[in-house]
Amino acid sequence: MEPFPRNNFVTPLLTDLYEITMAYAYFREGRHLLPATFDLFFRKNPFQGEYTVFAGLTEVLHFVQEQFRFTAEHCAFIRQHEVFAEAEQLEAFLAFLQSDECSGQVVQLRALPEGSVCFPLEPLVRVDGPLAVCQLLETTLLTLVNFPSLVATNAARHRVAVGDRVQLVEFGLRRAQGPDGGMTASRYAYLGGFDATSNVMAAFTYGIPCRGTHAHAFVQSFVRPAQAPPVDAGASTERSALALLAYRYRDEIVDPALRQSFQLSAKAANESELEAFIAYAAAFPRAFLALVDTYDSLGSGVPNFLAVALALEHQGYKPLGIRIDSGDLAYISSQARRIFDVVKPGNKYIIFASSDIHEDTLYALKEQGHAIDAFGVGTHLVTCQKQPALGCVFKLVQVDQTPCIKVSEDPNKTTIPGRKRVYRLYGRDPSVSMIDLMMLDSEPEPQPGERILCCHPYEEHKRCYMTPSRVEEILHLRLINGTVMPEDALASTASDRDRLQLARRRCREQVQALRYDYKRPLNPTPYKVSVSAALFKLVHQLWLSELTIRELS
Amino acid sequence: MEPFPRNNFVTPLLTDLYEITMAYAYFREGRHLLPATFDLFFRKNPFQGEYTVFAGLTEVLHFVQEQFRFTAEHCAFIRQHEVFAEAEQLEAFLAFLQSDECSGQVVQLRALPEGSVCFPLEPLVRVDGPLAVCQLLETTLLTLVNFPSLVATNAARHRVAVGDRVQLVEFGLRRAQGPDGGMTASRYAYLGGFDATSNVMAAFTYGIPCRGTHAHAFVQSFVRPAQAPPVDAGASTERSALALLAYRYRDEIVDPALRQSFQLSAKAANESELEAFIAYAAAFPRAFLALVDTYDSLGSGVPNFLAVALALEHQGYKPLGIRIDSGDLAYISSQARRIFDVVKPGNKYIIFASSDIHEDTLYALKEQGHAIDAFGVGTHLVTCQKQPALGCVFKLVQVDQTPCIKVSEDPNKTTIPGRKRVYRLYGRDPSVSMIDLMMLDSEPEPQPGERILCCHPYEEHKRCYMTPSRVEEILHLRLINGTVMPEDALASTASDRDRLQLARRRCREQVQALRYDYKRPLNPTPYKVSVSAALFKLVHQLWLSELTIRELS
Repeated sequence: MEPFPRNNFVTPLLTDLYEITMAYAYFREGRHLLPATFDLFFRKNPFQGEYTVFAGLTEVLHFVQEQFRFTAEHCAFIRQHEVFAEAEQLEAFLAFLQSDECSGQVVQLRALPEGSVCFPLEPLVRVDGPLAVCQLLETTLLTLVNFPSLVATNAARHRVAVGDRVQLVEFGLRRAQGPDGGMTASRYAYLGGFDATSNVMAAFTYGIPCRGTHAHAFVQSFVRPAQAPPVDAGASTERSALALLAYRYRDEIVDPALRQSFQLSAKAANESELEAFIAYAAAFPRAFLALVDTYDSLGSGVPNFLAVALALEHQGYKPLGIRIDSGDLAYISSQARRIFDVVKPGNKYIIFASSDIHEDTLYALKEQGHAIDAFGVGTHLVTCQKQPALGCVFKLVQVDQTPCIKVSEDPNKTTIPGRKRVYRLYGRDPSVSMIDLMMLDSEPEPQPGERILCCHPYEEHKRCYMTPSRVEEILHLRLINGTVMPEDALASTASDRDRLQLARRRCREQVQALRYDYKRPLNPTPYKVSVSAALFKLVHQLWLSELTIRELS
Repeated sequence: MEPFPRNNFVTPLLTDLYEITMAYAYFREGRHLLPATFDLFFRKNPFQGEYTVFAGLTEVLHFVQEQFRFTAEHCAFIRQHEVFAEAEQLEAFLAFLQSDECSGQVVQLRALPEGSVCFPLEPLVRVDGPLAVCQLLETTLLTLVNFPSLVATNAARHRVAVGDRVQLVEFGLRRAQGPDGGMTASRYAYLGGFDATSNVMAAFTYGIPCRGTHAHAFVQSFVRPAQAPPVDAGASTERSALALLAYRYRDEIVDPALRQSFQLSAKAANESELEAFIAYAAAFPRAFLALVDTYDSLGSGVPNFLAVALALEHQGYKPLGIRIDSGDLAYISSQARRIFDVVKPGNKYIIFASSDIHEDTLYALKEQGHAIDAFGVGTHLVTCQKQPALGCVFKLVQVDQTPCIKVSEDPNKTTIPGRKRVYRLYGRDPSVSMIDLMMLDSEPEPQPGERILCCHPYEEHKRCYMTPSRVEEILHLRLINGTVMPEDALASTASDRDRLQLARRRCREQVQALRYDYKRPLNPTPYKVSVSAALFKLVHQLWLSELTIRELS
């Protein structure tokens, strides 16, 4: 596998201390090599939705294969921690940590393909291996899956909200959880369906398309329009001609008829803003996109943009359009579009909006009507304000050939025991999946055309028979003997960028194929996740045997 | 300055594309070296509170001094971006980016001391330097300040909620925004008043105390208590003695009297849980802290803990206590404490709680009464669920000797123009600050004992006279000519860990000194932030001159 460009904090120490203390206690008991299975799954879809996008797998595979190696320096740090003071078998344990016995060599990892749509309770990743090694992977795997999946899901929901034609650009770097929060957000927003990012480092590192315009500061910095531009800049004849043309068009644009229709004032358009637009257009005549709300979007920014746009067109260029970053986006965009159409019939100017956008705003704007072609989404996308964490957990489901269960006073926190496979069953239309089914490893797999009983994992009255037209095993073996198995769709020489593109495509296709009632913003239908009859029996047998019966008196 | 252990994504490319396109446009106009000043500030305290903790400065200084260097590789990436296709002066611009003219050498940076309490509108960081260079710093500085300050503030609020005696441990790695989100959260939660983290990499990197217990998986993995432990482990006589003692104490603990008082059943206590506790205690006889809610906290976990704790004490050790991770924390902790006191009068067992804790839970538990000595806080702390982003912005306030203002259709988005100093004025009690005052650089500084007029920046009727007993200039020069000025309180040889400790101490002292009405959870009093009469005049003069007057008809 090609090296993955990544955060240098990702080491075996990027974990909770208790993973290491537990590993020591297993080791001390001679239980560290017991064969075990852990499932990584979540219990509830985020954002009050009914689907989730699985992401982070590329980073997980790279971590387990390459980075999960305790070094002498790591061990020196562990040795001096107070909790290990006088620990009898510490040196033997540290030798174990640094050996091949404690590495990606000794685990098998199964996972959903990255970018897949997934649902509660089913394992997204299943790890088989020695108890202590699996345990040591827990926190890092959760860190590498939780936030990527959350952001990819959030991005996919934004994409569902706007449909396929509107452009979505991620603008969140400055509001993310530090540098890597921003990098992760950019990568996985792209995977989930965004078209581009403003984050240059993400573009550089992951090959994501990068977009941007300019900020209010740029306009403000031209605060003294009377000041003659320095000789260097003025030396260009084209620059001087552009400025002259822009001033001339500005006077034409705000002619009496237009002024009356749109209540524009010739004096209202700010001169330093016009100077700033001319400067930006001179620098980027092929990519002129003006931020119009520094002073007054409709009164100043739009006429100034038009003046410069017409001047550029006169010189043979195609200006791009405007960005609006405040105010009533539905109203301003619609008015701006009307002005564009009066001043320059047949124009292709785009309107880009970027003011505190989130999924709900996108639906509200759609309902009100607007003329926006592209959205920049920052804070709400990257912080996932509506639900800032996906609660993936990593639970022991089998140890030493014995399935086990985590019971809880809260029934929703009970786990599904045993080594399992996961199948996606398709209905009469073989492109539409109807139900996911978990079965024990030992059970024969479901066959197309054969009826099978699918049970709700906890509620015995919820059952159905399903006769699938197509059966897809969705948990694939991806790491064995230290070797990452490439996805079927990719050559083993595929680069990180190829993998990201494939995951992005998969996400788009699977979200599109999902029935709309699972995706609608309000009260979506839950997708069915079920267990086989044998697994149902195992769940309930272990559940009752493990739960304490209280004595009341 | 000692190298700062950090994320390798922090480069000059960790920025939004528009910073680079704006820098090119400034360059193309010959305006890139105009002297400029930018302020970094926020407009609203987070979490419906009235104070914020400033954090991230160490990383900012390190970035500007060391990492802000465009390389040939960065420039090659910029060169091939479509927006620069056919850009006339691109090569000269790229040469500028790689020169000393575009580096930390040419800017001056002033900032509040890290860990300071701060308030809306006042600059936390002020950067003076060439227009293009300051502009290029924007996004990275925001990324390095926004989340650290948010998390430090969140941590400080948790500390205010529990008081000084209760221990707070950060448990958020698995729910943070990827690896660095987790690292940043651990560092700045510690700065804000947490005592420790579970994140080993943060402990390794930043020297933060590290704590942990064990997980449910550890208990589950002992699912077959009948199985004889392997010879290696059983070989220790102490281990065998501990097990024998624990089983004996278990039978004693659940004697009829205790069973009756606490409705415990001898059969209720789960045997595999007892085996797990014995194993953990054998591994960590000096640090035995048991997670008791795998099966039933009061019915099984607490009696099993006590059995092992008494056995350990018999062997001369001091067990630590229990952790509760689910259920009604007020009730379970109080009942557990009663059981402890009956079974082992005079015990010092601690009760650690860690189930979905946040600031509001801490207040609610205080009100209900509980017996918890320490809290582990994860998701809500690191994601700052209540408000997942601090809206710091970086705004141009002066260019080419001319103060400038960003007006907006939203009055709250208007900036305070000009190069400013910030003073904190103390009242009769010289330890209690009353008001912060921004003044223009050119004004004489306020003097203790002299009355001065302090104006609300926007509302002319809100004014007061203040006669300070003490005046503290809070914005300090920290970087000049590429040299970081050490804080007064630290030697220039201070390590990153020394700086972190100093900031943490400052945060604790300043939050403690803050009047309680600014800190209370519900409807706190806003702290006064004011401007001098001269600055008030400048704000309003620029505001009116820049705002468009609309024509209605």
